Amino acid sequence: MGLLVVGSVALDSVATPFDKVDNALGGSATYISLSASYFSGPVHVVAVVGDDFPQKYLQMLESHNIDLDGLQVIDGGKTFRWAGKYHYDLNSRDTLLTELNVFEKFDPIIPDHQRKSKFVCLGNIDPVLQKRVLDQLEKPQFVVCDTMNYWIEGKKDELVSLLPRVNVLIINDSEARLLANEPNLIKAAKLIIGMGVQTLIIKKGEHGALLFSGDVIFSAPAYPMEMIFDPTGAGDTFAGGFIGYLYKTQDLSVENIKRAVIYGSTMASFCVEKFSTEELEELSYLRIQDRYREFLGLSRFDDNL
Amino acid sequence: MGLLVVGSVALDSVATPFDKVDNALGGSATYISLSASYFSGPVHVVAVVGDDFPQKYLQMLESHNIDLDGLQVIDGGKTFRWAGKYHYDLNSRDTLLTELNVFEKFDPIIPDHQRKSKFVCLGNIDPVLQKRVLDQLEKPQFVVCDTMNYWIEGKKDELVSLLPRVNVLIINDSEARLLANEPNLIKAAKLIIGMGVQTLIIKKGEHGALLFSGDVIFSAPAYPMEMIFDPTGAGDTFAGGFIGYLYKTQDLSVENIKRAVIYGSTMASFCVEKFSTEELEELSYLRIQDRYREFLGLSRFDDNL
Repeated sequence: MGLLVVGSVALDSVATPFDKVDNALGGSATYISLSASYFSGPVHVVAVVGDDFPQKYLQMLESHNIDLDGLQVIDGGKTFRWAGKYHYDLNSRDTLLTELNVFEKFDPIIPDHQRKSKFVCLGNIDPVLQKRVLDQLEKPQFVVCDTMNYWIEGKKDELVSLLPRVNVLIINDSEARLLANEPNLIKAAKLIIGMGVQTLIIKKGEHGALLFSGDVIFSAPAYPMEMIFDPTGAGDTFAGGFIGYLYKTQDLSVENIKRAVIYGSTMASFCVEKFSTEELEELSYLRIQDRYREFLGLSRFDDNL
Repeated sequence: MGLLVVGSVALDSVATPFDKVDNALGGSATYISLSASYFSGPVHVVAVVGDDFPQKYLQMLESHNIDLDGLQVIDGGKTFRWAGKYHYDLNSRDTLLTELNVFEKFDPIIPDHQRKSKFVCLGNIDPVLQKRVLDQLEKPQFVVCDTMNYWIEGKKDELVSLLPRVNVLIINDSEARLLANEPNLIKAAKLIIGMGVQTLIIKKGEHGALLFSGDVIFSAPAYPMEMIFDPTGAGDTFAGGFIGYLYKTQDLSVENIKRAVIYGSTMASFCVEKFSTEELEELSYLRIQDRYREFLGLSRFDDNL
């Protein structure tokens, strides 16, 4: 059946303190699907681009066993463009340009043969659209959902009403504080779980990630990066590795979800090493396994009990 | 022989968003020695107070097998006083008052019978005094050292020249960035190791702690605190639990140092639950072990390899 990914496909222009790139491949669905593709294929993408979208990017995605049947190409339309500039410490950025273009009227239509999809990853699009995706599915088994400050501020009711249909919500720490309206992250997590989401993952960038599921709290370390080249897409790449590993193993136990958090972190650590999807295009499962092992070493010790 | 602790003993007035307390017991040597006392006694404290220092605090410390032979009581002198106010999120604070009093002319004299001490914890006093302590010791085996922004900015050369004589430097993330003059924490850690310190621990508050030793990097989780009552002394309490556990076990392997980081974190998590040393005064080894186990559960998982 494959994994279903719905989100944006974009052309990004990014400036970091080290270098810059124009019209590089970007968008949440792009990062999620590329990241997931290393675990299992096919990955079905539902998104929209204009007819200016470079053919080479389509070919690259297809070469990763990413199925583009659900990618709408709008004749005469322009692809979503985003431009941003990262600050010195790479923890914050300014958005220089957001041109929604064809994305403004995006209506995610799930192709008939993908409506039986069991594993679904909803990129951080409008929660109204996220809901419309779920409404088209026959009986999704495992729904992973991302969102962003823009929707938490602008469409909080729509987002909150979606949460009981979501198995795993993946957001960052500032989004969690904003969604719960609570500065303490642990309290915020409990409040969000109280909104009906089964499992919550809070990404904390250079400080790793926290998983909350029932009574379980799991703290995943961050990979010790001496050099972050471009943080764009790291969160989406995390989500892709996370759901890709779970789809591959078909094991939704909390223990396996913990492993999936480490695989998600592993994939994100590659993503930030180069511009755009450059590093994600050329990975191997062997390199992923090696870094997963490095992650294990970061938090492992003999407790002597 | 016992564990030697040198630092400040103070009277703290602390305001948090929840409550306030005046002239409560404080100071780095206080927190370090109380925390360490749960692992091994006697703990020898070298510090200074005035004759206004409440007798009840001396009795409380002595009841924890803390030896006060090295505590100078200055006739007619006033004890070091500090007052601070924490902001809403408890991550930042304003210092309202710093009255050094007898601490201004503190000259740490190690009593003769403590000069053979093998395990030493240097609280965040002037690096010139920290050096003077080491000069009085016959052959210290394991030196743990704390410092603070004030000394990094004002006496960097003195501090850096001390580092090759230190086994473990324990500082927080902003201090590490300042000492190394490098925003990337992993790079900063390597630069500090390059200054000659054997092992570096970087405390990151609600994000846990990082240990750097040789090629080993270890990431310790933070205890998920829903309520931080008063953060004062958490760092010193960490250091006390850390060195207390190592002194008790007399095992300086990296594996055991990782365990000590978790014990340090465990003690710090108790410290912040009440004002001043209140919670540290009434702990039991059983409660410490229970929380240590909770810490293990936070990062533990079956890697399935």
